[in-house]
Amino acid sequence: MMKQIDGGVCAAQGFRAAGLHVGVKTHHTEKKDLALIVSDVPCAAAAVFTTNVVKAAPIHVTKAHLADGRARAVIANSGNANACAPHGEENAERMCAAVAKAIGCAPEDIVVASTGVIGQTIRVNVIEEGVPTLYTLLEHSAAGSDGAANAIMTTDTVKKEVAVETVVGGKTVRMGGIAKGSGMIHPNMGTMLCFITTDCAISPSMIRQALLEVAAVSFNRISVDGDTSTNDTCCVLANGLAGNAEIVEKGQDYDDFAAALRDLCVQLARKMAKDGEGARHLITCTVKGAKSEKQAETLSKSVISSTLTKAAIFGCDANWGRVLCALGYSGEQFDPEKVDVAFASAAGSIDVCRQGRGLDFDEDLAKKILTEDEVVIDVAMGEGGAECTCWGCDITYDYIKINGDYRT
Amino acid sequence: MMKQIDGGVCAAQGFRAAGLHVGVKTHHTEKKDLALIVSDVPCAAAAVFTTNVVKAAPIHVTKAHLADGRARAVIANSGNANACAPHGEENAERMCAAVAKAIGCAPEDIVVASTGVIGQTIRVNVIEEGVPTLYTLLEHSAAGSDGAANAIMTTDTVKKEVAVETVVGGKTVRMGGIAKGSGMIHPNMGTMLCFITTDCAISPSMIRQALLEVAAVSFNRISVDGDTSTNDTCCVLANGLAGNAEIVEKGQDYDDFAAALRDLCVQLARKMAKDGEGARHLITCTVKGAKSEKQAETLSKSVISSTLTKAAIFGCDANWGRVLCALGYSGEQFDPEKVDVAFASAAGSIDVCRQGRGLDFDEDLAKKILTEDEVVIDVAMGEGGAECTCWGCDITYDYIKINGDYRT
Repeated sequence: MMKQIDGGVCAAQGFRAAGLHVGVKTHHTEKKDLALIVSDVPCAAAAVFTTNVVKAAPIHVTKAHLADGRARAVIANSGNANACAPHGEENAERMCAAVAKAIGCAPEDIVVASTGVIGQTIRVNVIEEGVPTLYTLLEHSAAGSDGAANAIMTTDTVKKEVAVETVVGGKTVRMGGIAKGSGMIHPNMGTMLCFITTDCAISPSMIRQALLEVAAVSFNRISVDGDTSTNDTCCVLANGLAGNAEIVEKGQDYDDFAAALRDLCVQLARKMAKDGEGARHLITCTVKGAKSEKQAETLSKSVISSTLTKAAIFGCDANWGRVLCALGYSGEQFDPEKVDVAFASAAGSIDVCRQGRGLDFDEDLAKKILTEDEVVIDVAMGEGGAECTCWGCDITYDYIKINGDYRT
Repeated sequence: MMKQIDGGVCAAQGFRAAGLHVGVKTHHTEKKDLALIVSDVPCAAAAVFTTNVVKAAPIHVTKAHLADGRARAVIANSGNANACAPHGEENAERMCAAVAKAIGCAPEDIVVASTGVIGQTIRVNVIEEGVPTLYTLLEHSAAGSDGAANAIMTTDTVKKEVAVETVVGGKTVRMGGIAKGSGMIHPNMGTMLCFITTDCAISPSMIRQALLEVAAVSFNRISVDGDTSTNDTCCVLANGLAGNAEIVEKGQDYDDFAAALRDLCVQLARKMAKDGEGARHLITCTVKGAKSEKQAETLSKSVISSTLTKAAIFGCDANWGRVLCALGYSGEQFDPEKVDVAFASAAGSIDVCRQGRGLDFDEDLAKKILTEDEVVIDVAMGEGGAECTCWGCDITYDYIKINGDYRT
């Protein structure tokens, strides 16, 4: 019953959004750098954050604000991470206060997030000055979501926006999300910001449960460069306007909601992996025949995180030895002589390794397969019945270029 | 009492070496691809290997051959890893047999190692045909070591060769090593081959002990790209010709020997890190003030392994936020608000972060410091008295180029 719809974070009833350039980075162009998402009514809300020991100030503030499982709006900026910077929490609180004042709600009902360079004081005054204008720009339309999605982008080359519609408890429920990814995306969350809105009626504890379950099998299964950031935040707001009976426990309604959330988050995760800094290929690695899903996940993550495998895919080189090698140093135990490897894409598929030994294969066909934008590395462990899919991207000259001089 | 000397693996008494082009890779140029090191007399010997679950055939063979702690010679090829390839162990044994025949010893006294592409059948016949010629080329001279050092290189741009002289039990003892590194170097050993010879008299169990201790604080503290290879081997041969009383237990003699071995191995490790594929900078990260050496090592390795930090150093960008970020996702717990960071090189040093907060610093001086070939990242945790130094390199366009199409 699930279907794709338009509208991003404004697809669900009662949500408005906008983006604006306020000048968080002084020497930047007119790129939008401040995003606002507001619900017409209070929401149940939950968030997951980076596992990095070094956490940006907005994360501490948002965590405190979400302690009651309630929120009304999200304010997020690009251009400065507000991490390891003077007066971090104070400035994050000031961002919330400015939004609360415009809406007429408590500052504790505001979620705040930042992304950008670490260690520099955020220009909170330009944000405070911009919020009233930004508030007047809020729209309940695809354009509103588009503005917000653009405002959180840093080195992203395309905006990430998805919305789906499903049925929960007999009512049409919509949910939509915007995200930014690119560098530092890694299992356990890279510099990713993701904001999801839904009109589903669901309790704070159930939405928290669903987000934890879904993040583990979507955002935590992508990797761009193995670095995890100080700022990662994924937040869901649910305002209940769909009119379904509030989900307060596990059951069919919960499952239907969680399935839609998973679909949405996997789509966003894939978009993030595909748009990894400088990336030309989305790499999907499916590990089958593992002893457990956990083992399959560790093996798959090791492959998509392998710098040498990523470089081989960049070169459209069917260097399956690097895949086997990455499986081998994953930390999981297995019998290398049971492993099969194949490469696949829209151009076909080709077996390259059987039972740990190289096969003679058509190098031209392999090249053709690996030249496609989206390539699949299929690994069969021959050890059991569990499987897992993770997503990553290749490493390119542009990755080096983008990250060789990011601050200036 | 330790001093640098010339001669590489031929510096110690009674060792001869040579390198030869035999054509392991058909379409390669005339690059030497087969190395032989022979002791005039039997040696005590020990080796450490890759921790990768997928191990190349020569590793299984060498492990078996060294079970008695004795060896006479090392045969090593570049151009083919003999990993995940048909008849792997059989071919590795054939390499040993050819050498044993030339020397007139048992095949079990031969150490064998390979490096190169994974998954292709090794051209063992050209190796067998080349061994008799190679044997006639053996020289007890710097030229012999040079030939062997060149023959094991793959994408290395410079040969790695070191020798030192020390005094053990009142006798002059020499030791020398050759190594190849480049891609896939990582803690727990990358595609590295390292062969060390010494004329010290030491028992098999003591040489094994010393190698384990020293490898942990030298080769296991470098990283190039985070991938660990299927073929890593570090082997030491000790022939006793220095005439010292055989070291059979811990004590002053053992300590003197181990200190020289550590000095030798750290020098070789740094050379490998510095010559990481495409690298322009050797990055040394020293973490001080940690709770334990283990914690300091984990933190330091996380910094030198961080792709984003490596890209920043490539760009000579003093992006200390990435250093803090890498410390944060290392898995170690610490208080970010106690961390200081400084960058240093031959051009000077500069404090960039104090107690987890950015300092205003001279960007021009920072650039100047980071433009040097060897840069140091100094981290002070403020938590205790332990420290550790690890070595890595930057990531460059050339790394991508080299690894985008390695097989062809």
